Amino acid sequence: MSGNSFGKLFTVTTFGESHGPALGCIVDGCPPGIELSEADLQADLDRRKPGTSRHTTQRREPDEVRILSGVFEGRTTGTSIGLLIENTDQRSKDYSNIAETFRPAHADYVYSHKYGFRDYRGGGRSSARETAMRVAAGAIAKKVLADKGVQVRGYLSQLGPIAIDQARFDWDEVGRNPFFSPDAEAAEQMAEYMDALRKEGNSIGARISVEATGVPVGLGEPIFDRLDADLAHALMSINAVKGVEIGDGFAVVNQKGTEHRDEMTPEGFLSNHAGGILGGISTGQAISAHIALKPTSSLRLPGRSINASGEEIEVVTKGRHDPCVGIRATPIAEAMMAIVLLDHLMRDRGQNADVTTDLPVLADVPTQGD
Amino acid sequence: MSGNSFGKLFTVTTFGESHGPALGCIVDGCPPGIELSEADLQADLDRRKPGTSRHTTQRREPDEVRILSGVFEGRTTGTSIGLLIENTDQRSKDYSNIAETFRPAHADYVYSHKYGFRDYRGGGRSSARETAMRVAAGAIAKKVLADKGVQVRGYLSQLGPIAIDQARFDWDEVGRNPFFSPDAEAAEQMAEYMDALRKEGNSIGARISVEATGVPVGLGEPIFDRLDADLAHALMSINAVKGVEIGDGFAVVNQKGTEHRDEMTPEGFLSNHAGGILGGISTGQAISAHIALKPTSSLRLPGRSINASGEEIEVVTKGRHDPCVGIRATPIAEAMMAIVLLDHLMRDRGQNADVTTDLPVLADVPTQGD
Amino acid sequence: MSGNSFGKLFTVTTFGESHGPALGCIVDGCPPGIELSEADLQADLDRRKPGTSRHTTQRREPDEVRILSGVFEGRTTGTSIGLLIENTDQRSKDYSNIAETFRPAHADYVYSHKYGFRDYRGGGRSSARETAMRVAAGAIAKKVLADKGVQVRGYLSQLGPIAIDQARFDWDEVGRNPFFSPDAEAAEQMAEYMDALRKEGNSIGARISVEATGVPVGLGEPIFDRLDADLAHALMSINAVKGVEIGDGFAVVNQKGTEHRDEMTPEGFLSNHAGGILGGISTGQAISAHIALKPTSSLRLPGRSINASGEEIEVVTKGRHDPCVGIRATPIAEAMMAIVLLDHLMRDRGQNADVTTDLPVLADVPTQGD
Amino acid sequence: MSGNSFGKLFTVTTFGESHGPALGCIVDGCPPGIELSEADLQADLDRRKPGTSRHTTQRREPDEVRILSGVFEGRTTGTSIGLLIENTDQRSKDYSNIAETFRPAHADYVYSHKYGFRDYRGGGRSSARETAMRVAAGAIAKKVLADKGVQVRGYLSQLGPIAIDQARFDWDEVGRNPFFSPDAEAAEQMAEYMDALRKEGNSIGARISVEATGVPVGLGEPIFDRLDADLAHALMSINAVKGVEIGDGFAVVNQKGTEHRDEMTPEGFLSNHAGGILGGISTGQAISAHIALKPTSSLRLPGRSINASGEEIEVVTKGRHDPCVGIRATPIAEAMMAIVLLDHLMRDRGQNADVTTDLPVLADVPTQGD
Repeated sequence: MSGNSFGKLFTVTTFGESHGPALGCIVDGCPPGIELSEADLQADLDRRKPGTSRHTTQRREPDEVRILSGVFEGRTTGTSIGLLIENTDQRSKDYSNIAETFRPAHADYVYSHKYGFRDYRGGGRSSARETAMRVAAGAIAKKVLADKGVQVRGYLSQLGPIAIDQARFDWDEVGRNPFFSPDAEAAEQMAEYMDALRKEGNSIGARISVEATGVPVGLGEPIFDRLDADLAHALMSINAVKGVEIGDGFAVVNQKGTEHRDEMTPEGFLSNHAGGILGGISTGQAISAHIALKPTSSLRLPGRSINASGEEIEVVTKGRHDPCVGIRATPIAEAMMAIVLLDHLMRDRGQNADVTTDLPVLADVPTQGD
Repeated sequence: MSGNSFGKLFTVTTFGESHGPALGCIVDGCPPGIELSEADLQADLDRRKPGTSRHTTQRREPDEVRILSGVFEGRTTGTSIGLLIENTDQRSKDYSNIAETFRPAHADYVYSHKYGFRDYRGGGRSSARETAMRVAAGAIAKKVLADKGVQVRGYLSQLGPIAIDQARFDWDEVGRNPFFSPDAEAAEQMAEYMDALRKEGNSIGARISVEATGVPVGLGEPIFDRLDADLAHALMSINAVKGVEIGDGFAVVNQKGTEHRDEMTPEGFLSNHAGGILGGISTGQAISAHIALKPTSSLRLPGRSINASGEEIEVVTKGRHDPCVGIRATPIAEAMMAIVLLDHLMRDRGQNADVTTDLPVLADVPTQGD
Repeated sequence: MSGNSFGKLFTVTTFGESHGPALGCIVDGCPPGIELSEADLQADLDRRKPGTSRHTTQRREPDEVRILSGVFEGRTTGTSIGLLIENTDQRSKDYSNIAETFRPAHADYVYSHKYGFRDYRGGGRSSARETAMRVAAGAIAKKVLADKGVQVRGYLSQLGPIAIDQARFDWDEVGRNPFFSPDAEAAEQMAEYMDALRKEGNSIGARISVEATGVPVGLGEPIFDRLDADLAHALMSINAVKGVEIGDGFAVVNQKGTEHRDEMTPEGFLSNHAGGILGGISTGQAISAHIALKPTSSLRLPGRSINASGEEIEVVTKGRHDPCVGIRATPIAEAMMAIVLLDHLMRDRGQNADVTTDLPVLADVPTQGD
Repeated sequence: MSGNSFGKLFTVTTFGESHGPALGCIVDGCPPGIELSEADLQADLDRRKPGTSRHTTQRREPDEVRILSGVFEGRTTGTSIGLLIENTDQRSKDYSNIAETFRPAHADYVYSHKYGFRDYRGGGRSSARETAMRVAAGAIAKKVLADKGVQVRGYLSQLGPIAIDQARFDWDEVGRNPFFSPDAEAAEQMAEYMDALRKEGNSIGARISVEATGVPVGLGEPIFDRLDADLAHALMSINAVKGVEIGDGFAVVNQKGTEHRDEMTPEGFLSNHAGGILGGISTGQAISAHIALKPTSSLRLPGRSINASGEEIEVVTKGRHDPCVGIRATPIAEAMMAIVLLDHLMRDRGQNADVTTDLPVLADVPTQGD
């Protein structure tokens, strides 16, 4: 229930610093009887892990996860599932000049103030390394959801100035380039752009989109735990995220009511501006969310800052870094969406399992790339 | 802990349907000894309430709140505070043709599916009427925060195509026009725009911005209950919100690292792209958040929909409506931000009250309108 | 989630001081579609309310409850249910000499220390008056449980030295005497005992027992939210409770394993020493819990104490008091057990609704008074 | 927030089956800056672990705990602390005949019903093995509390028919015999009694007492999270516990008000029948709680039961077992009390840190064995 836990019924609690011995998490409340193995988790972890292309940080972690409990004879038991990933490739010496300094746009300053001191190696707990456990936990949620026909998929919709072209959208392309881009042409432009950026020593932001299909009608707990509110919480909790949109997001500011509303016919919805959520509850349409990730704070280009004594210093970060954290955020965003959806599916049936109706269930409009 | 509760230590739980006898809420965990009276709450409720200008719904509710517990001899006792607002101006007959129909872009369809049936009068629990209680609870949070030098203020930053001009920004203007616009000129344009919209029978979206100053360094509970994550949760839970940004929000997608980072000097921060939150923890700088509100779904212009039997129908909403819900959302967004900040202030001191440091505390850049 | 809330899915949050304007509560997460009216709640409230016999406090409160939300056309909607009871018979002058004094064995001392000051009239929030709302909320839980064949009933098993005789146990007797005693003869002895006690100006303790039948197998969330752990929490939270037992309770200390274990046969369980809960999960047998209530602290017999300045004083409580709070605790204990059972029923189906087995379901031994 | 988590601010979440690869837990919300090492945890783990005397199960586990995060340069960082204990001495073959059978008075039956199947080896998650992690987490809480002058100590107050004699009470004796008995003479009688019991193949219950001193006034969150209610929850959640008492416990049933009340004088309290908690809030007096543990269910003496097909069978448990679980429960009860106290200390200061009073703070009566 403290800050390192997420979820009401399907709960994820994590631990682990960037340069500590291990990362771990406990997934509690998982429905029993689901087939689960390390391989199920490893697939998504491999999509996320560092060192897989020249465009991401060169730290090489195998990110091999072990399941320590909650699974017996290949199926979940319903008891808490303990997961563990050992850290193997920490290079603490890369950070030795950081102990007394506050790197601009990093969490050094705030962690030191909040807790009095911090594990400064590699960003400690504030490092994106902890997201590995979210991906592992999210893989469990995805497994359970898949059994129920719910699929969660993400992609990079924009990297810096390069936006994907919806006309060239292809889900299969997402897994074929290091950017999770569904647009092959844009992926090539991104590669060039990133090479230039790496030479420059700078970084850039990105926009990630996540979509869930097959979600039943009725998930979400008004008024505070609306499905979109919990999604916003989950997605904004990812390192570097500065914005969250559902459906048309900020475009709604200049939409008229007649333009925005998703009319209904017996054949189904006529549009999906709402992004699959109305009144905080899922409509059965595809749920779409988008996040904005800020550019990485660790740069080779010097930045002005202060040290713990308040003196002016210049900070240059050496070592291995992501010029664009957005590239690896796609599996993390998928994981968080999966966790929220499963938690809400369980909460909804906990309260409303006895509800039966013969109301019409509307089909969705075709989604992108179908 | 269910969907109608928000907060870990400072908790708000609400009830109340649009056309029920009353709305109410319980505020729990309020620090004791704070001076509190109905007048403290009424001020913000009056800012929010309907019927105050021709630009908002013409339903006239006095929204008079009563404090039923938790206050003794003018000060909070630390026990749970019960608040009540009677509904007086419900016109149920305005909705009688809605019982068996699903209005497009409303929550009728999803509520009926989720619960099996719904209180259809005025939108029932899905109506924005419940936000009155959030504003009342938020006023309590604002009171406690004010004692600690924290101020929360909001304003309308954009209505449809009309954006405010930062150069004409004046906090005092916000309370002088019905739009909460800090730009007098833009307010005039908005009035004209809204008059035309009302004639047309349509609606438009809006963008609200909220800012908190005087926030101490160190609020936020990584990794899941980061301050920005909880803010996103709180703000996205407001009816009609489809997007949340912190600081530069979606603009970060195309910002380079050198452009985005807020450098530090002994004199203070040199910028505030982060919006006052780094690594999910407050930096002491002004916290800024922005929300996108979709256009109202209740329109006089006919829309296509279905009824409970799945037959095609046309829906025209009569009665009293907001052509732009954004106009009244400002006090609601302020309230939610205040609730989150107080909750986090309490959580932080609960865990870290013994932390002492002599670290430098950096000044912020001057904020807008100072 | 703060101290005035109980439950994970079926949540009860209350407010209200002994001499404040009103008591209230919000019941959240109630399954929809359940028939509910004020009359359903009033029945249990009338069982609990003061002034119904010469053996309880002479304060006369009608305890009329109003349902303010969450019910439409006679059925629960699934949205939060607001309940309100106005206080009408507060006699504040009876407590005017209490403001600066700490009554021994009351919560005056601790409330003043914790919060800095307190609403001293009638015990403020620490008064047993707040239990009226628990009973109202519990009545809702009982209604939902009844639909599922679960019945919760309580009785007084001992008052001071007078224990009921199991051989004379009759459930119908419970509602026929003011003690909730299932033993008519014991009830007469209790009446005499209490008359003497009232003359003496003293008070006595009591033991209440609560039983639930028809509970399905499998309720309880190990390891911390075991069903018995949550029951213990709920029951110990009732004013004046100093002990909680499940099944044989403290008698197990001197039981051998062969004596204690409830053996199983195809015809059913052979005994029920466990009280219907094993490993923290319901077995399907009758659940039995017992609580010990201390004697009322408000006595006409002088007691030594101190005032807020630390000076020695003598305290004599005038006014209207319960010589035995146990007499009215039965409906409160029933209410708490019902709330816990419903919460767990919902939690269990939230996680395990897809579990199907063809395992044998064992019958219980006959319970008392059948 | 699910069943395997406990606490609101200081939170403990655990995982691990009796015969799984490892047990682990995450302690979240620990105040930063506390010196902590594996040695601090190992001391209490060694007090609890199996195989230390002939009177407990002969399974030999080193129970060596590793700290995987949340500690840097010897001090807690305020981030989540991951703990891990590898299981080394599982003998799965000892349980191979259990897979399809339900042992009487064990959780086999209920786990199989709830989850559809279970990890049957050594009791799986229902085994008392998981309590090792509670003890490790509790050791962290004890460390933090010790810094604040709060001490938590437990002892065996009764084993079967053998009660300790208060006149011979000696805290130093507790650590000198395998029973945690503060009465040396009683310890000898217990040894004889247990030897006879082991020969017989039977088991017996026990009563454990836990005491906390140095607790400040004002801990506890009425009305539901009263300190005694949370203690009851925590203690009842321990395997085999069937009853919880605070202070005089069930003796209050037959106490008059004049006998029970703890009068106050300027020199301090005159008694402590309340057990240090009034109105659910700590008084500053020694907090005392007592639990009843049922006799172990695993016996060499045959018991009647059924198998998964509903057929009658006889169950004899071979292998290594505790004839009296009470013997090892003392460190577990201490751990749970420490966790509750620290959680409440943090909750109280989270809400009430600004409260200052000059009210008198009363001294306690001398406690036993001083």
